[in-house]
Amino acid sequence: MDDLNFEGYTCPLPIRPTETVILGHGSGGTLSRDLLNRLFLPALGKAAPRALDDSAVVVMDGQRYALTTDSHVVSPLFFPGGDIGRLAICGTVNDLAMSGATPVALTCGFVLEEGLSFNILQQVVKSMQDAAKEAGVYIAAGDTKVVQKGGADKLFINTSGIGKIPDGINISGSNAKEGDVIIISGTIGDHGIAVLSAREDLGFETALESDVAPLNHLVQAMMNAGEIHVLRDPTRGGLATSLVEIAEQSHVTIEIDEQALPVRPAVKAACEMLGFDPLYVANEGKLVAFVKESNVEKVLDVMKKINYGADATIIGRVIGIEKSRVRMRTAIGGTRLVDMLPGEMLPRIC
Amino acid sequence: MDDLNFEGYTCPLPIRPTETVILGHGSGGTLSRDLLNRLFLPALGKAAPRALDDSAVVVMDGQRYALTTDSHVVSPLFFPGGDIGRLAICGTVNDLAMSGATPVALTCGFVLEEGLSFNILQQVVKSMQDAAKEAGVYIAAGDTKVVQKGGADKLFINTSGIGKIPDGINISGSNAKEGDVIIISGTIGDHGIAVLSAREDLGFETALESDVAPLNHLVQAMMNAGEIHVLRDPTRGGLATSLVEIAEQSHVTIEIDEQALPVRPAVKAACEMLGFDPLYVANEGKLVAFVKESNVEKVLDVMKKINYGADATIIGRVIGIEKSRVRMRTAIGGTRLVDMLPGEMLPRIC
Repeated sequence: MDDLNFEGYTCPLPIRPTETVILGHGSGGTLSRDLLNRLFLPALGKAAPRALDDSAVVVMDGQRYALTTDSHVVSPLFFPGGDIGRLAICGTVNDLAMSGATPVALTCGFVLEEGLSFNILQQVVKSMQDAAKEAGVYIAAGDTKVVQKGGADKLFINTSGIGKIPDGINISGSNAKEGDVIIISGTIGDHGIAVLSAREDLGFETALESDVAPLNHLVQAMMNAGEIHVLRDPTRGGLATSLVEIAEQSHVTIEIDEQALPVRPAVKAACEMLGFDPLYVANEGKLVAFVKESNVEKVLDVMKKINYGADATIIGRVIGIEKSRVRMRTAIGGTRLVDMLPGEMLPRIC
Repeated sequence: MDDLNFEGYTCPLPIRPTETVILGHGSGGTLSRDLLNRLFLPALGKAAPRALDDSAVVVMDGQRYALTTDSHVVSPLFFPGGDIGRLAICGTVNDLAMSGATPVALTCGFVLEEGLSFNILQQVVKSMQDAAKEAGVYIAAGDTKVVQKGGADKLFINTSGIGKIPDGINISGSNAKEGDVIIISGTIGDHGIAVLSAREDLGFETALESDVAPLNHLVQAMMNAGEIHVLRDPTRGGLATSLVEIAEQSHVTIEIDEQALPVRPAVKAACEMLGFDPLYVANEGKLVAFVKESNVEKVLDVMKKINYGADATIIGRVIGIEKSRVRMRTAIGGTRLVDMLPGEMLPRIC
């Protein structure tokens, strides 16, 4: 942004040059992008179209496929509403779905710490099985490595996946158009706060559950109902980071309405207590959609009939194409710029 | 095996039922298979054909694709002849090549420990770039997670990949035929001993280098030269474990000749000193091929002209189809049964 506007600008974590990896490099926000731009993309990224989308697009025999990978290191392994197994399946299914792809097959790679109990592993695998069944995907290949005690924190799971992109579908972060209406599929911040409360034993677990869920069936119904330009699941970095990414990829100005953002009272209370902004807290069963204005009612109707879209609501629109930025009309009537998550707010939430 | 023959049978590690994960579960041998059969396959494996091959086969739009995943946790990160980056690319390229597939795209998922120096990460990424270039593959998608200091041992890399299986190619561990001639592409045990010597500072590093290399070009040339029934890269568990797996998958009796096994003097000396058997030590740039008898000379000729196949040699053949087992004619004229690696000989070699 060459026209930085400090109106309402806050800097919860100053960014300093660093010679070592810090937790913020895994945040999904500015530091993650810095690592990507500084190190990974120059060396490894040359041939990947849509390198900043949730999935890459690979063309084989004239057919487009989405390809994605995600490592899961959430702590604790089990949290209200889910566990690392459900997260590992849903995360990858959702990344594929966000490019409009129908998931075809997943792979999973386990890194296990010596001494992990089979009982825990069995629960996680059972949970993966259930989530895969719900999403209608199968796991085609797997791998297991074991490191000595202390060499890893219990259990990490990588899930990669491939999905087929139907002909005529063109959904990408770079495809937002002026006039698009922005829909969120439900309340924000549930996952991050649920994991944090389980980890830190904050005592409000009962009211808070992670939203971790596979969204591919919801996406399929939405695509059947209307023209969708952008889909993204606002995981690490939260809704704010996703919107800023889309604004930058599509070169558009986005305006959202703070009062329209659906936030559960328990999440709101927890965020106020902890000094977090729900806009930056991770979700694992929500999507943000940029929909052609004339199709919005049909898309919303369909979403509300599906469990994971029952609370879908309009939160804003694309108001211009001059500047790549996200503005928010605040509850008290002002306007502030929304930026990416700069550092790390909640480590190891996925 | 219902006709266990204890002639020459040794048991370097007794197998006990365990309620927790032990290092041997990542060995690629009997304990790995136990974990696979007991836990992963019942829950997750139902739909995967060739679940015991290096890659799974997925059919999309009538075209067969190989899909594979591998997590890399090698310690130390750098060893003579390679590093975790080269290993991560080659391991996945080779798994795809072992099903006759032409690699199309890879994904990589990093798990980084907080405090890892960028300098190390940069070297690893550079090494991935070089290996990908050598293999002619590209990395389509990536992911980075950071865990707090002590939560992981420096750096883990998952690489998954997809490759296209050419029409008419049918290479699988279950495809060995009576009369097939067995070729190894070069010396065995180099990788495992090189990593171990670097890790334990055994003082014979200079003479020993890992063989880690991408074998896809070698495989392509072999497939052009003759009919290949089985390909496998004998990584974890070594050549012995790969041969036992193939004997079981194909229901054949394999006989190999101990004196024909190519082992570097330095590897032989190290194995004798440490009490290891090179048959069980991991390789990362070797393949074992089961070739139609009448095509062997042509295939061998082609292999010897390619750097990674220069030392290719015949080590045995498929002598029958009655019993799934591997026999070895020993140097002193006897015969012994070869079994899988039962537990863990060298942890974290890949």
